[in-house]
Amino acid sequence: MKIHTEYLWMNTHRRKELVHVTEQLQEILGRSGVTEGFMLVSAMHITSGVIVNDNEPGLHQDIMDWLEDLAPERPEYRHHMTGEDNGDAHLKRILVHHQAIIPITQGRLDLGPWERVFYAEFDGQRRKRVVVKVMGD
Amino acid sequence: MKIHTEYLWMNTHRRKELVHVTEQLQEILGRSGVTEGFMLVSAMHITSGVIVNDNEPGLHQDIMDWLEDLAPERPEYRHHMTGEDNGDAHLKRILVHHQAIIPITQGRLDLGPWERVFYAEFDGQRRKRVVVKVMGD
Amino acid sequence: MKIHTEYLWMNTHRRKELVHVTEQLQEILGRSGVTEGFMLVSAMHITSGVIVNDNEPGLHQDIMDWLEDLAPERPEYRHHMTGEDNGDAHLKRILVHHQAIIPITQGRLDLGPWERVFYAEFDGQRRKRVVVKVMGD
Repeated sequence: MKIHTEYLWMNTHRRKELVHVTEQLQEILGRSGVTEGFMLVSAMHITSGVIVNDNEPGLHQDIMDWLEDLAPERPEYRHHMTGEDNGDAHLKRILVHHQAIIPITQGRLDLGPWERVFYAEFDGQRRKRVVVKVMGD
Repeated sequence: MKIHTEYLWMNTHRRKELVHVTEQLQEILGRSGVTEGFMLVSAMHITSGVIVNDNEPGLHQDIMDWLEDLAPERPEYRHHMTGEDNGDAHLKRILVHHQAIIPITQGRLDLGPWERVFYAEFDGQRRKRVVVKVMGD
Repeated sequence: MKIHTEYLWMNTHRRKELVHVTEQLQEILGRSGVTEGFMLVSAMHITSGVIVNDNEPGLHQDIMDWLEDLAPERPEYRHHMTGEDNGDAHLKRILVHHQAIIPITQGRLDLGPWERVFYAEFDGQRRKRVVVKVMGD
């Protein structure tokens, strides 16, 4: 069995942003030597997540607007009594989930025709990490 | 280590529908020969997901009504400027998550007493795939 | 390859509660002997989930209030025609997701600096199980 671990560093220009990482994951897969198995992609900071969806800019804006409706930025979160101002980002991470597993089949990311992998940043403009761990044969 | 991959094809009668797949997963498990490990069940199309919950028809209607409240069908999604009309389905997939891992223990799907696995279709009436990948001993 | 399975029993004082389980998971990891791999943590009852987020009490209250807003307790769920009164808890489980995978690296839970693992109970005050399954080398 082969196990291979890498970390992606993120530092987005905007505070909230979707970052397309499929190509970086393909490169990690190549370095892992795994042809059959699982790849875990997991946001290690508690104000970001991972989304597997369409690479279409209009949809990305829809996703961000929708998340803002369901988990809005607002001053009243109790979490802000600690001095933080990112309560909404913690909730958005929960809603989109913070990780995904990509199946690896015949040496490829076994994604559907339109599935692409995105890092979802909800409190960026600073360095944050994503762990990518591949396990298989 | 054994790794076994199959694809389920879905083609629902209704546009939105929950499809109970636990028995099909048990059959795949049998064919895999795995007795200890993980089974990934992941919707490969970006307008469907996977839910592990109760097999109770009233609850299923509650789930679909609730998803419609939180991620409604409406014409105004930016995604619709591409000619699509399924913006809500992309958001519903994010909300329910598009995949689940079933632990495999002593040759069985290690589910709780009421846990059953459902494919959640939000834009159906056409052929779509689910990848099922089992890894273990 | 090593595969190790344990079950955590939960019985919360309150009906809805977040229970910090990171230390218990570290102990299970120690007993597994795995130094590189994946740990699945999955709530086996259909009215509870798993959250990986900050261990900050104000945020925990924010999370529970937010979940109550998005998936409120109310009598009208169809599921209640079966005699149940926990329709909201099924929906909350879907929203937070019922499981997480913790990567295991160099013998440790490979969590970000503030990531902690919580069992999220939405219909407690009775014994419920969480499956913890570790697979790796």
